[in-house]
Amino acid sequence: MALIRQLAVCGVGLIGGSFALALRQAGVVGSIVGIGRSVAALERARELGVIDRVAEDWPSALDGTDFVLVAAPVGQMNAIFAAMAPHLRPGTVVTDAGSTKKDVIEAMYRHLGHHLGEAVPSHPIAGAEKSGVDAAFPTLYQGRKVVVTPLPENAVAAVAQVRAAWAACGAVLEEMTPQEHDRVFAAVSHLPHLLAFGLVHDLAGRANSKQLFSFAASGFRDFTRIAGSHPEMWRDICMANRQALLGELDAYLAELAYLRALLMAGKGDDLEALFQTAREARNAWARQGQNA
Amino acid sequence: MALIRQLAVCGVGLIGGSFALALRQAGVVGSIVGIGRSVAALERARELGVIDRVAEDWPSALDGTDFVLVAAPVGQMNAIFAAMAPHLRPGTVVTDAGSTKKDVIEAMYRHLGHHLGEAVPSHPIAGAEKSGVDAAFPTLYQGRKVVVTPLPENAVAAVAQVRAAWAACGAVLEEMTPQEHDRVFAAVSHLPHLLAFGLVHDLAGRANSKQLFSFAASGFRDFTRIAGSHPEMWRDICMANRQALLGELDAYLAELAYLRALLMAGKGDDLEALFQTAREARNAWARQGQNA
Repeated sequence: MALIRQLAVCGVGLIGGSFALALRQAGVVGSIVGIGRSVAALERARELGVIDRVAEDWPSALDGTDFVLVAAPVGQMNAIFAAMAPHLRPGTVVTDAGSTKKDVIEAMYRHLGHHLGEAVPSHPIAGAEKSGVDAAFPTLYQGRKVVVTPLPENAVAAVAQVRAAWAACGAVLEEMTPQEHDRVFAAVSHLPHLLAFGLVHDLAGRANSKQLFSFAASGFRDFTRIAGSHPEMWRDICMANRQALLGELDAYLAELAYLRALLMAGKGDDLEALFQTAREARNAWARQGQNA
Repeated sequence: MALIRQLAVCGVGLIGGSFALALRQAGVVGSIVGIGRSVAALERARELGVIDRVAEDWPSALDGTDFVLVAAPVGQMNAIFAAMAPHLRPGTVVTDAGSTKKDVIEAMYRHLGHHLGEAVPSHPIAGAEKSGVDAAFPTLYQGRKVVVTPLPENAVAAVAQVRAAWAACGAVLEEMTPQEHDRVFAAVSHLPHLLAFGLVHDLAGRANSKQLFSFAASGFRDFTRIAGSHPEMWRDICMANRQALLGELDAYLAELAYLRALLMAGKGDDLEALFQTAREARNAWARQGQNA
């Protein structure tokens, strides 16, 4: 029996496309309709068999749909919820794949006030340096965490269906409050992206940038891999979560001030102890998962 | 004909061990003797066939040796040069694999003043998150850059032999001044290591560090991989190159102050443009080498 009769995916890129492919592979979805701002990308998704049909507007996308995933940069969520709101049928479950939750939830309250029982925020923790539907694959969520941050207004059945859909993709479900979510991801995801973009931008602007890059090796490659991420997506994340991100950035600036003081004072032993602590924490974490 | 009749490797870890294995595989070395502070590590190197003989002191290590590689953390170079100096035979070529050059050269001038014609500083650019002789392998230097920073006093033949030895390992040779070398690597290697150690140390000290690490994903994994590097080695590098490193850290702090100002002011467009510049520079670099 299908978990979802008709799925609508808004934004059929890596995240939305992989969700569609995973549900299809699990055999729990009837048909899949795609909607989004780029007709070319939607046509490509249809060609690839990721979606069955391209919808040109929300009335068409929501016709017969019982489950909606919005997988667009978080800066677009507000406009998307506004556009879909008048056409949502009672009972249609809506979730999102946004990397930030406070702003997405504000947009839900703003536009989906009549539909809060079925609007369940979620966030799949899946790497996204590559983007676009061509990068989508059905096992992207296998063993990955998906954080659900339910609203007090959510119907129990709607939360259960969102959890079941992600579970069908092979994901491991977690629940957090939106505030907790945004603080945690500011630290372990949003700040590192900002730092990597910043370092590459700093070096790229130097007169000798060509020489610098020519001597960059594997350490630099790994450290800056996330600086290849999607600029618009990360602009939106940084803007949406800038309160928590500024807090994390300031904590990091304090750390760098401490490191700077150790360097200035020539305190090699303290520096080594700090490196040792970091190495042990990093290795302990790496041993737990497949994070080596 | 052997390029090197007898090679002495001081510090038989990843770097020294891989040098020995590569020269052996290339068939350009007669015998190999190891010396270092850990007898257990040297015995292990002999067991693995990386070296032929363990020397217990410098007179024994230098007896019959025509080429020495010092592959120890840069903080030990001064004491190593001091210890070997009285026993160096005329004509024996000495090079090092230190990640910094100004301090190593100062130590050469301090202790090898009688031997500067044959003391040729070099630095192989090969990743070293793993360490120890068990991690050594003969193709580590294949296609990697090795920077030679010759001294004005160096004999042409000695520089040529050092270059030839690295070339026999499959490396691509580059020449720079020591000052240029230390500035370039402060930017593309030493600073990123400091930043990665700092981030992990910052997060590891939080009350909720367990929760934070549990939600860290592939972006965090890559960004922090270099925080698994050898603490003593990196203490030495940071101390030896702290002038250039402080310069790079300050430039980066200015970059972060700019990013902070954009976040505070909510300037999403400027942030996106900066991310775009970084992404393009990073992708252009990745396309050139095997750096994706």
